[in-house]
Amino acid sequence: MIPTASPGPLNVLVWGENRHEQLEPAVAERYPHGMHGAIKEGIEENLGDSAVVTTATLDDPEHGLTEEVLARTDVLVWWGHAAHAEVSDEVVERVHRHVLAGLGLVVLHSGHWSKIFGRLMGTSCTLRWRSDEDRELVWTVDPTHPIAQGVPHPIIIEQQEMYGEFFDIPAPDELIFLSTFSGGEVFRSGCTWRRGHGKIFFFSPGDQDYPVYHHSDVRRVIANGVEWARTVRPERQVPTLLRYDREDFFAGHGYEGALRADVAE
Amino acid sequence: MIPTASPGPLNVLVWGENRHEQLEPAVAERYPHGMHGAIKEGIEENLGDSAVVTTATLDDPEHGLTEEVLARTDVLVWWGHAAHAEVSDEVVERVHRHVLAGLGLVVLHSGHWSKIFGRLMGTSCTLRWRSDEDRELVWTVDPTHPIAQGVPHPIIIEQQEMYGEFFDIPAPDELIFLSTFSGGEVFRSGCTWRRGHGKIFFFSPGDQDYPVYHHSDVRRVIANGVEWARTVRPERQVPTLLRYDREDFFAGHGYEGALRADVAE
Amino acid sequence: MIPTASPGPLNVLVWGENRHEQLEPAVAERYPHGMHGAIKEGIEENLGDSAVVTTATLDDPEHGLTEEVLARTDVLVWWGHAAHAEVSDEVVERVHRHVLAGLGLVVLHSGHWSKIFGRLMGTSCTLRWRSDEDRELVWTVDPTHPIAQGVPHPIIIEQQEMYGEFFDIPAPDELIFLSTFSGGEVFRSGCTWRRGHGKIFFFSPGDQDYPVYHHSDVRRVIANGVEWARTVRPERQVPTLLRYDREDFFAGHGYEGALRADVAE
Amino acid sequence: MIPTASPGPLNVLVWGENRHEQLEPAVAERYPHGMHGAIKEGIEENLGDSAVVTTATLDDPEHGLTEEVLARTDVLVWWGHAAHAEVSDEVVERVHRHVLAGLGLVVLHSGHWSKIFGRLMGTSCTLRWRSDEDRELVWTVDPTHPIAQGVPHPIIIEQQEMYGEFFDIPAPDELIFLSTFSGGEVFRSGCTWRRGHGKIFFFSPGDQDYPVYHHSDVRRVIANGVEWARTVRPERQVPTLLRYDREDFFAGHGYEGALRADVAE
Repeated sequence: MIPTASPGPLNVLVWGENRHEQLEPAVAERYPHGMHGAIKEGIEENLGDSAVVTTATLDDPEHGLTEEVLARTDVLVWWGHAAHAEVSDEVVERVHRHVLAGLGLVVLHSGHWSKIFGRLMGTSCTLRWRSDEDRELVWTVDPTHPIAQGVPHPIIIEQQEMYGEFFDIPAPDELIFLSTFSGGEVFRSGCTWRRGHGKIFFFSPGDQDYPVYHHSDVRRVIANGVEWARTVRPERQVPTLLRYDREDFFAGHGYEGALRADVAE
Repeated sequence: MIPTASPGPLNVLVWGENRHEQLEPAVAERYPHGMHGAIKEGIEENLGDSAVVTTATLDDPEHGLTEEVLARTDVLVWWGHAAHAEVSDEVVERVHRHVLAGLGLVVLHSGHWSKIFGRLMGTSCTLRWRSDEDRELVWTVDPTHPIAQGVPHPIIIEQQEMYGEFFDIPAPDELIFLSTFSGGEVFRSGCTWRRGHGKIFFFSPGDQDYPVYHHSDVRRVIANGVEWARTVRPERQVPTLLRYDREDFFAGHGYEGALRADVAE
Repeated sequence: MIPTASPGPLNVLVWGENRHEQLEPAVAERYPHGMHGAIKEGIEENLGDSAVVTTATLDDPEHGLTEEVLARTDVLVWWGHAAHAEVSDEVVERVHRHVLAGLGLVVLHSGHWSKIFGRLMGTSCTLRWRSDEDRELVWTVDPTHPIAQGVPHPIIIEQQEMYGEFFDIPAPDELIFLSTFSGGEVFRSGCTWRRGHGKIFFFSPGDQDYPVYHHSDVRRVIANGVEWARTVRPERQVPTLLRYDREDFFAGHGYEGALRADVAE
Repeated sequence: MIPTASPGPLNVLVWGENRHEQLEPAVAERYPHGMHGAIKEGIEENLGDSAVVTTATLDDPEHGLTEEVLARTDVLVWWGHAAHAEVSDEVVERVHRHVLAGLGLVVLHSGHWSKIFGRLMGTSCTLRWRSDEDRELVWTVDPTHPIAQGVPHPIIIEQQEMYGEFFDIPAPDELIFLSTFSGGEVFRSGCTWRRGHGKIFFFSPGDQDYPVYHHSDVRRVIANGVEWARTVRPERQVPTLLRYDREDFFAGHGYEGALRADVAE
């Protein structure tokens, strides 16, 4: 039987940059508990007791993303925008390593330009945009996917920033949602990738200037994505390079360098 | 009609680490013009006058990969092994930028662990291996792909290093070849990905300890890959983030920061 | 929260051709309850009370695949070989319709050449083969996939028929397993596709001439596949062509023909 | 060097249903040489002497798709709408066999519901639609693809029938274009698949009620698709099931039945 990763509840960490909320009163009013707070509430609302949701922000020590915190997190949700450059490279490498080992990652909206998303995708992750109160319609193109369950087709978001193609990402492993905007643009708004042992879901709706994280369908999709991103593997492990003797398929030896005394590999 | 990228011949640059050839007499004997030299010969043998092939190595200034050189190169072929760590991060970022702009990239064998391949894939690119004179059979699973033309099914390589799964790469856009080894292992040995405006082909056969780059079928596949990797776009350009006004689909404006005076995005 | 399709247990129907068992004493001895019986036992062994497994065979009326039976089945497992041609086209169309509506389908081994698999794939589904006691190794190339959980890497099957590439199938949505054979051949042995609202898993190990369906790892994979193939959509529905008025995204109208009195589509 | 399939010009056959043109004066006026005639002109305009383009229609004997005609055709372009049911099953099987052997196929617009497209896809190929003078914007999401060259991003089609998701097709091998409509719908409007040895391109713009096949960008895309769909394999061959003895990788034996005297496969 397919295992459910950890026996206990799903441990979710919502990471928020938390800058717009400090600098712009309108955003603070829209999201009184921070954008990360609204995202957290949406996940709790949908997953109930099956999940334990905490938050961390840029200004926490080590951005709240210590080795210990990451090790006990099943799925990390990422929202950032104005301060991508302030995220330390060391923390990015740490999160990257955890994703390759099996940490689930849900990247939201302007997180498309975060260091961690770029590190995992290998592309520029650029796009076209306009913040002009477009209506966004989110259409399902993979109706059997677990992330697409429980929401209307299409999801209607009355006010949104426009994100449009060309979105410079690797071709997704699974393309779940496509969004259109009243201006006529289109965006691959719900995509999954697997990297190492980690599962990644990008979902583009959500913005500081619109109340998108209070939208019940958007919340449902994020909660579905969080559930989906949890690995079903029993333990975390970064893939490693190992040497295997002939007919010994299971006991790999550690790498000892490309150039040993009398020639290596 | 589909354009052929540049009107003139295909400019190919074969980059070789060129260390084993300096340090190990057996390798120098096997590859008297360097491994990069053998790879170059194989491309010339197959593409004739339609390509101009040059080489560069790790010990050249800036590893031979200056802005000027990259700008006039259509396709870069990469072989490295013992000295991946010596490739400067600055040069890797430069090559990465050129790939996103449209430079074709063919990564060979132990290049799987190069910085540039890891940067583009976002994964650990690790695998299992054994250097024990396995026979490798290279099977075609995408028989209509241009890279698979002109070679037997399977290609037989009498002596090879074993590379086996799990190979930690993103699911390929196109899976062209699968290799088996006499020990029973399997490897996704011919894969393509698109990143930004660049096309990438990884092909695993080839090793310093075996005469694989003298094998006519291996040479043919590399030449096919080089032809395939050349972009058909008329000019090089890194994807950029641009703002587009409503109903103005073609004249994007440059990004001016996430937090402007009166609120940005 | 992602729904589990039906509230009750998973209803699995194992369909077996049941001809080799009648005609060849060695097969009957190897599989005393029929091959379908062995497959059923393997699923029950792994899924326990969470599944209710029944069987049907070619010689049952309507091959045991009536409208009523299919309507109450969540996942259909298919094994056939010598008598593909005897499966009625009407039943194949019925199964096809149910798959498009959401019935899960697990196709085993020589089922690759069944009418229903060909109908869903659109290709010839041909391959290379040899029955000569090869050892098969089944390698995982998608280690986070639920179907790959709980089995060693590789699975070792001491005696098997060889199935080799080129296997004429559409590029899988997910490639989970690759098999090698002691003769050196390779096969994409574990693949998934989505068609309409249905999920399809093909798994190649299994043969009448070898005791493969008694192998605990093979049984585990089949059970995993059965769990995976169950739709998470709340109800079955064949996709239909509907007309939608402007701004009415949810109430589609039925198609009324391409050429109506006053011009159609 | 990658071969160009046949040494001579590309032989293209545009198949048109040719019923609307007979029955509806407005369509006849819009497309005075038939819709197939306009499609033919668009290909000739773009490919010039490198292609020889002919046409065939439903009312020709055997629909103009005899064994001889198909054998000398490199790429078949298909437009049908009102009379899909009148295409004989025998001809559909013939075309299907040729596609698996290497015939290129370009399916346009309402051809999504043709028998041949359904036979190759295995799904219902249904969608949502509305004929109400929507503006269609065709966006490129695979900018390095040869089919996407030479057209603006987006292509603007002032008047079009709306085709919207969910479009019940297999996940495309390559997703090249996404279309939006002024009503807000979205459609995967440019997709490729490989089936057997054949390459298939579906492109949705084009309708009898709008002058879409006179649009220069639409014509360019169709011409690009025709060039792309031509196989680079040197000869046509349907994949076949063959038995291979151990260590004989190249000389397959024909299948002789599943149940021979002394036990078969």
